[in-house]
Amino acid sequence: MMLENISVNKSFAGWHKQYSHASKVLNCTMRFAIYLPPLASEQNKVPVLYWLSGLTCTDENFMQKAGAQKLASELGIAIVCPDTSPRGQEVADDDGYDLGQGAGFYVNATQAPWQIHYQMYDYVVKELPELIQANFPVSELKSISGHSMGGHGALMIALKNPSAYQSVSAFSPISNPINCPWGKKAFTAYLGEDKSLWQHYDTCELMKKAQSFMPALIEQGADDQFLTEQLKIEALQAVVDAKDFDVEINYQAGYDHSYYFIASFIDKHLDFHAKHLT
Amino acid sequence: MMLENISVNKSFAGWHKQYSHASKVLNCTMRFAIYLPPLASEQNKVPVLYWLSGLTCTDENFMQKAGAQKLASELGIAIVCPDTSPRGQEVADDDGYDLGQGAGFYVNATQAPWQIHYQMYDYVVKELPELIQANFPVSELKSISGHSMGGHGALMIALKNPSAYQSVSAFSPISNPINCPWGKKAFTAYLGEDKSLWQHYDTCELMKKAQSFMPALIEQGADDQFLTEQLKIEALQAVVDAKDFDVEINYQAGYDHSYYFIASFIDKHLDFHAKHLT
Repeated sequence: MMLENISVNKSFAGWHKQYSHASKVLNCTMRFAIYLPPLASEQNKVPVLYWLSGLTCTDENFMQKAGAQKLASELGIAIVCPDTSPRGQEVADDDGYDLGQGAGFYVNATQAPWQIHYQMYDYVVKELPELIQANFPVSELKSISGHSMGGHGALMIALKNPSAYQSVSAFSPISNPINCPWGKKAFTAYLGEDKSLWQHYDTCELMKKAQSFMPALIEQGADDQFLTEQLKIEALQAVVDAKDFDVEINYQAGYDHSYYFIASFIDKHLDFHAKHLT
Repeated sequence: MMLENISVNKSFAGWHKQYSHASKVLNCTMRFAIYLPPLASEQNKVPVLYWLSGLTCTDENFMQKAGAQKLASELGIAIVCPDTSPRGQEVADDDGYDLGQGAGFYVNATQAPWQIHYQMYDYVVKELPELIQANFPVSELKSISGHSMGGHGALMIALKNPSAYQSVSAFSPISNPINCPWGKKAFTAYLGEDKSLWQHYDTCELMKKAQSFMPALIEQGADDQFLTEQLKIEALQAVVDAKDFDVEINYQAGYDHSYYFIASFIDKHLDFHAKHLT
């Protein structure tokens, strides 16, 4: 699979790079970003943290705003940021910021017109890791994290692939998409009216059925403007309370939904993942 | 002077806030951002680092991308980011990214149509610090830093106001604007054809004439795409070499002109300023 380099920036003695490639799974050209710590080499393959961004984001938001590179450089962890949906003029879209391009919700769409390109689940779980593994000096160890829609994606993907990741974390995740406006709108469009099918992508429903789980760390701003209506972290908290999993949910007083919140706690999450990756 | 709050985000236990206000000096409505560390209070006023951004930037670029808040929080330093020019539909502009709105060059314009609003020197040196002092829990101690056009601004303002700041630093500064395309274009428009007047805003010329200077730290990416044609750091290096000032210029191999470079070295600059501010 051909990678085309788009940009290179030295960052904390390592490298931030953007690439585009033809995605077979998504049936379009995709872009991603990777941060490679200075010690990464063919002789010293490093583990990877996959970061899934939220609504409207691209591969750039986390790399530019989270301030993760300093500690990732020290810990020797690569970070990979995919885009949040298929992209392009030929790709179905919607006028809303919460559906279509920039809002793939990390599911495999089954409904027209979305199913032609919107297969983000397979892209993040299969195609992208294979691409990264084949083209960069990374080991097979990986963890996953994300924010908001990407927090949903990270937790949901970890629950469906418990042996693929060493650990999972999330900031302000959409924890129960089948019961919030963002999730209902997207799942209706991508998956259709049969709500029983939605459960296969719902963190709360998946966790209820899970027999075991990997270490999980969740950070939630207590003053997040989307907390009550969209994120439903209390629903996830109730499921977690009934299980004996290693899931830590922290409410952070005063913090909102922005990258200022993510930046304030990203080092804690990197340390958490490093403990399980290295 | 009335301040209107635009946004508030908790950040590393402190607060990032944006405000708008009517600027008498600039004759328009202006926006700025301030980071207040958690320990700032009327009983514990904190020193301020003023950050001047580069071409096309607003108050947001540094706050979102530099990753400065973590250490500023720990050191107890406030950071103030003004916009890079007057703004508004009634404010003169140019189709180029390097003249007009987003490109004020921190000078007081004397030429039509620019002189009506483009008085960024007086705004940064006088009006904004008075506003900050009157409305926030900050001490009278201040330092100044900036990037590219803002690196020019920081060094030039420090040279013209040696007693107003404790220290100055710059990333990739336009070091000799009277001898580079960006500077010649802007100074011709804002200051007119008489090049003898340009020298009053040129870091190299000001430093040649200076009898003393404050501690200064300059970071320059050795792979900066603008180094040779626009930044002219070698001209500044030659002036510095002939003086006995406390000026450190560091060339950083592999780094470019981006915020990935700034983020990689901002903590070093914050530590430098803290040594002189606290």
